[in-house]
Amino acid sequence: MSDIDGRAVAKALRAEVAAEAERLRGEGVVPRLAVVVPTDDEGTAWYVRSIKKAAEKEGVDCRIEHLKEPGRDEIVAKLQELSADDSVHGIICQTPLPEGVTLAELGWYISPYKDIDGANPESLGRLAQGRRTWAPATAAAVLELLKREDVVLEGARAVVVGRSTVVGKPAALLLVNESATVTVCHSRTKDLAAVCREADVLVAAVGRAGMIGADFVKPGATVIDVGTNPTEDGGLVGDVDYAAVSEVAGRLTPVPGGVGPVTTALLLRHTVEAAELSKTHG
Amino acid sequence: MSDIDGRAVAKALRAEVAAEAERLRGEGVVPRLAVVVPTDDEGTAWYVRSIKKAAEKEGVDCRIEHLKEPGRDEIVAKLQELSADDSVHGIICQTPLPEGVTLAELGWYISPYKDIDGANPESLGRLAQGRRTWAPATAAAVLELLKREDVVLEGARAVVVGRSTVVGKPAALLLVNESATVTVCHSRTKDLAAVCREADVLVAAVGRAGMIGADFVKPGATVIDVGTNPTEDGGLVGDVDYAAVSEVAGRLTPVPGGVGPVTTALLLRHTVEAAELSKTHG
Repeated sequence: MSDIDGRAVAKALRAEVAAEAERLRGEGVVPRLAVVVPTDDEGTAWYVRSIKKAAEKEGVDCRIEHLKEPGRDEIVAKLQELSADDSVHGIICQTPLPEGVTLAELGWYISPYKDIDGANPESLGRLAQGRRTWAPATAAAVLELLKREDVVLEGARAVVVGRSTVVGKPAALLLVNESATVTVCHSRTKDLAAVCREADVLVAAVGRAGMIGADFVKPGATVIDVGTNPTEDGGLVGDVDYAAVSEVAGRLTPVPGGVGPVTTALLLRHTVEAAELSKTHG
Repeated sequence: MSDIDGRAVAKALRAEVAAEAERLRGEGVVPRLAVVVPTDDEGTAWYVRSIKKAAEKEGVDCRIEHLKEPGRDEIVAKLQELSADDSVHGIICQTPLPEGVTLAELGWYISPYKDIDGANPESLGRLAQGRRTWAPATAAAVLELLKREDVVLEGARAVVVGRSTVVGKPAALLLVNESATVTVCHSRTKDLAAVCREADVLVAAVGRAGMIGADFVKPGATVIDVGTNPTEDGGLVGDVDYAAVSEVAGRLTPVPGGVGPVTTALLLRHTVEAAELSKTHG
């Protein structure tokens, strides 16, 4: 078994981002990501600081828009303001959101030209149409890791565990577009382990620490662990039982150090792409 | 084996449409479907006439907008005009389209409030988000038939053969939203027959006459045949080898008389829903 090194993939991506950002700055365009933070949640604050640090290291400006106990209308107004602001190229909205407000609904207020985390239904629809768009960065990170590892997707059986709008469904659509035979599983799936064992490529995005055991994995399969479950001692563990699955899988992403750093790097890559796009779409 | 009677389902749906249309007319709203026909294709003309006839029988006005050898811009202008016309509630655009123009791209010009055949990427994205929207009518017909037949979808294994934007992918998303465990197959799938035999519910949408044989079907499975392949003598056959599969399947839709009439009935139901919606979204 070999680990898939997400940090190495992220490093390569970020070097590409830095080169692009420098080129854009040379043309007078400062690539800028705006992060709307509608919460005082500490975990979110920590994550947002890590994005800002990564962005600024690679020459991408990062503007944090912290809203204190906002209502729905205040978040919508902020997303509209940023969508209309020519100096902003990428917009993401963090969670948790106020009671009764969903990202699915707020995403509509992010201009599709700036929707670098695929929150607007139009972006998701274009993904389903197989057209050029930004997928949610975590789903895009799954594909990026598989491609950088030269995993054959055409004709492969891929199983995605989890059907969220931000990971499971877009990852499944990306894999279908790459000509994998794709199965989407979830909490209602019967005999989940047996279905997962059909997979040449297994994507775990359920949000339950260590639930994917060795009996879920076909020997030699490639396993991408999207889970980031906090542990009691302040660490992170994935959805995959790493110790057990590493005995069976061919390749496996660790947590931390797998999907996470690639997701952050892709938010930056998408932002420089959006900045490039802004030259024609203003 | 029992046939799933699409004509009976369509009849029930159309009776509901007629009642709704009458109610709306009583309120001064004449539900109206506009069909853009950017081709002189005879098959298309025949199909459009059959929609018009069905619509008007149930009290839905049907306006056919025939464009003679149009360019892309002329079709876009027509879709925009109809999107802005308060007297029109539903808009569909027929194929074939001029060389180099795709429905995926044109759909964006159909107002989401009138997009009763799910052509706008926003509609498809809302479908992926699991929100209220109109799915492409053919994909919606697959679900309508399964629901009217009381086929258990939660936890069932569903296999969709075909990954088109108008049928395969939206049908798969609808089935995931209904909590089936869904596999999407296509031309690159290896050992297609074996994958199809996993299905409790098999949806064939490949466009190849009779390619789904008895060896693709688990005994007792429910099979929905979306194919409409013209025969040399002017008839239609499905993607399923009816004679062979009827020996194995539990339930099967015939062609013609299965998905087709339900699709037409759903275009009408979606139009009256859009007419109802227009009272608040004008």
